[in-house]
Amino acid sequence: MTLEIFPLLGIGLVKPGDEVTDILEPALQPLQPEAGDVLVVTHKIISKAEGRVVTVEGDEEAFKRALVETEAVAIVRRRGNLVIAETKHGFICANAGVDRSNAVGGTMILLPEDPDRSAHRIRIRLQRSFGVDLPVIISDTFGRPWRRGLTDIAIGVSGLEAVLDLKGSTDWMGRELEVTEIAVADELASAADLVMGKSSGIPAALVRGYDGPRGEGRGRDLVRSPDEDLFR
Amino acid sequence: MTLEIFPLLGIGLVKPGDEVTDILEPALQPLQPEAGDVLVVTHKIISKAEGRVVTVEGDEEAFKRALVETEAVAIVRRRGNLVIAETKHGFICANAGVDRSNAVGGTMILLPEDPDRSAHRIRIRLQRSFGVDLPVIISDTFGRPWRRGLTDIAIGVSGLEAVLDLKGSTDWMGRELEVTEIAVADELASAADLVMGKSSGIPAALVRGYDGPRGEGRGRDLVRSPDEDLFR
Repeated sequence: MTLEIFPLLGIGLVKPGDEVTDILEPALQPLQPEAGDVLVVTHKIISKAEGRVVTVEGDEEAFKRALVETEAVAIVRRRGNLVIAETKHGFICANAGVDRSNAVGGTMILLPEDPDRSAHRIRIRLQRSFGVDLPVIISDTFGRPWRRGLTDIAIGVSGLEAVLDLKGSTDWMGRELEVTEIAVADELASAADLVMGKSSGIPAALVRGYDGPRGEGRGRDLVRSPDEDLFR
Repeated sequence: MTLEIFPLLGIGLVKPGDEVTDILEPALQPLQPEAGDVLVVTHKIISKAEGRVVTVEGDEEAFKRALVETEAVAIVRRRGNLVIAETKHGFICANAGVDRSNAVGGTMILLPEDPDRSAHRIRIRLQRSFGVDLPVIISDTFGRPWRRGLTDIAIGVSGLEAVLDLKGSTDWMGRELEVTEIAVADELASAADLVMGKSSGIPAALVRGYDGPRGEGRGRDLVRSPDEDLFR
């Protein structure tokens, strides 16, 4: 299969109370969504539309520190101004997801309350509009231990398997695979980021030609349960 | 920009001593490589061609355990049969990169000695063949703390910036970005994995339309230096 990844162009400023599908639809229209497409949306516009935006009061740095503590259920590491925290969703990321980039001046953006529900809602509404079942991934930009640079990963998923389980599959030599779980939703989010960039104002992309299994995967499937995790 | 990702089809079994570019060229030919394309090759075929394959002696599990210790410069975590180790390249991954998947029976595959050098060598040879400077990424499949499933990442790079530095760039609102380093080579490796799969025998893909900066990035740029790393 060949994969094509299209940036969704012409999406303007999103404000609290906006209906995000009303904003995505005109950008999707020229691409004529078809069966097999996957829609990737950065969480920023979801958070804004859902009103997950707070107005800074007082000193910005102090306000941010307090906000991070509120959003975090656990602090994983701390060094100077850098806080790596676990969110209530189970994600472990910088500043518990609190971010100022692409926020209107004097505001900060939080993660969506329930990114899987947000993804599901977008999928259902777009299905009504386009008559096609488009799996939806909501992405964010996370760091990783040991490796420099950030990559986009999936925090919300609807309509496809987030983790591809190859258990029982064999490699090309007929030998059972040792690697059995592929985080395909994260790979799709990373792939989409390549056409979105960080400063270009493109908050969504359409992936065409991905032939992995549809299903009822969720972003939370990508969170490793603490008892399986050697790193906390 | 629109990104296209093509699997490289028809690549057969690779043996120690093979010239990997001789194997890649006929698979690239139908795609007519052009300026702007990026070639992603899984390390397995590089390791095989470079003879980084060892024959199992005695008990397979015991042999593997000993081999992992040899390949590792440090053990990061250990639980049962699972060893997370640092390789001499600075990568932190399961089994120090020792893998049996897609190995000929009775053998195990190691990481290339110097994946950046391997990438550079492929790039130079393909430039001679096609008259086009194709950046090359050598990929492997790594796990991550906290998240389920594995993703493909870049272990060797030639001809493009591995980490995109956005320092000083502004977001769409004119605000300086907080996130400044994007691991684009890892995102390209993940994107390429979506067309390769793990059991399909497709060991390479061509990415067309990536407009990120060319340059002299290396896979080692993606290794976070221990003094910047909160997680070791």
